[in-house]
Amino acid sequence: MEKITVRTGKRQEFFDVTDSVNGVVKKSGVNSGVCHMYVPHTTCGLTINENADPSVKADIISVLEKLVPEDGRYAHSEGNSDAHVKSSMTGHFLCVLVEGGTLQLGTWQGIYLCEFDGPRTRQIWIKVMKQ
Amino acid sequence: MEKITVRTGKRQEFFDVTDSVNGVVKKSGVNSGVCHMYVPHTTCGLTINENADPSVKADIISVLEKLVPEDGRYAHSEGNSDAHVKSSMTGHFLCVLVEGGTLQLGTWQGIYLCEFDGPRTRQIWIKVMKQ
Amino acid sequence: MEKITVRTGKRQEFFDVTDSVNGVVKKSGVNSGVCHMYVPHTTCGLTINENADPSVKADIISVLEKLVPEDGRYAHSEGNSDAHVKSSMTGHFLCVLVEGGTLQLGTWQGIYLCEFDGPRTRQIWIKVMKQ
Repeated sequence: MEKITVRTGKRQEFFDVTDSVNGVVKKSGVNSGVCHMYVPHTTCGLTINENADPSVKADIISVLEKLVPEDGRYAHSEGNSDAHVKSSMTGHFLCVLVEGGTLQLGTWQGIYLCEFDGPRTRQIWIKVMKQ
Repeated sequence: MEKITVRTGKRQEFFDVTDSVNGVVKKSGVNSGVCHMYVPHTTCGLTINENADPSVKADIISVLEKLVPEDGRYAHSEGNSDAHVKSSMTGHFLCVLVEGGTLQLGTWQGIYLCEFDGPRTRQIWIKVMKQ
Repeated sequence: MEKITVRTGKRQEFFDVTDSVNGVVKKSGVNSGVCHMYVPHTTCGLTINENADPSVKADIISVLEKLVPEDGRYAHSEGNSDAHVKSSMTGHFLCVLVEGGTLQLGTWQGIYLCEFDGPRTRQIWIKVMKQ
C-alpha cells in the first residue's frame, strides 16, 4: 500500500488531497478498479464534498462543531473528545471508482482529509484494487 | 463501470434503488465479490436502512433536518448548504457483498439514494469487483 | 463470505470485534488486499475508533443519544427509531486494508459493532478481497 503524509495547520480543517490521491492511482498502473483510502487515526476522518466554493467546507466544520462542541461535557479527558466523535460521523475510509487510470469523481467533488484535532501530521493509506 | 439514473421528485427524499443495483450485479456475471456504489454529487448521499416501514426513511430525513436545517445560517450562499452537510453525514458510497450472483442484504435492508437538494436527476456509478 | 456472531448485552454498546475480524483475515490466507465488513441489520452499525480509553466509546454513544434521543418524536412506531437513524449516521460497512496477512489499523484504532437497539444477537459478514 502507498502512504500520503499531510501536515494540517489548524485544529479543524478540511485538507484537499484529491491530486495527491490521483497521483497514487496513476502510479499504480491500474486502469479499471477501486481506490481505497484509509486514515489510521481516531481524531480525523475522510469525506467527499464540493471542490469549488470553500465556504462549503467551512459550513460542514461549523455544523459539526455546533452538534459536537469542542468544549462540551465528555468522559474522555484528553480535551479532544469532540474530534473522536466527529471522526466516527464522517468515517475513516473512502472508496472511489477508477477508470482510464484515474479517479472517477463528479465535476464538483474533491477528496478531503477532515482534521478535527490539529495541527498534526496525518497519513492516508491507499490501495488501488484492480478489476 | 455501470450507471443508474434516478429522477427524484422532492427536495428531500430517500429513493429505493435496491432492485436497480441488483440488476447491475446480475448483469455483471460476478458470482462472488463486492458491489461498489458511488454518487458523483455533493448534495445527495447513499445509505442502507429499513425496506418495510416507510416511516423509518421519514424519521431519518426529519432528524437530519432538525440537526442541519435548510434555513440555518451558512456561509455557502446557494441555499443548499444543509444538503452538502447532510451528504457528508450519510456518505457518498456503499460496499455490499455479493454471493451467488446477488447482493447480500439483510432481510429488512434496502439501498437508498438520499436526495437532499431535489428534485434532480442523479446518477449512481457501480462497479462489481470479483473475488 | 465468513460470518461473525456477536451477542450484545445492552441497549446501546460499542462491541470490540477487532480480534475476531483479524482471525477471519488470517484464516483467509490473503496476504495483501482489502477486508470488507458488513452488518445485515438496520439498528446497528460499524465504526472505527479508539481502542485504549473506553470513555471514548461512551462519549460517542452519549453524543448520538443527545442528537437522536431514544424518547424523541418519531413516525416509526416500534420504539427503536433512534437506532435506525444512528445506524445510518455511523454506517453499516467498513473497509480496512490488509498487508502481511493482517488488518492494517492505526496504533489506537479498534473496530466496533455499534449496538443501538440491543441486547441482540448480531452478525458481521466479512469478505477479504485479494489484491
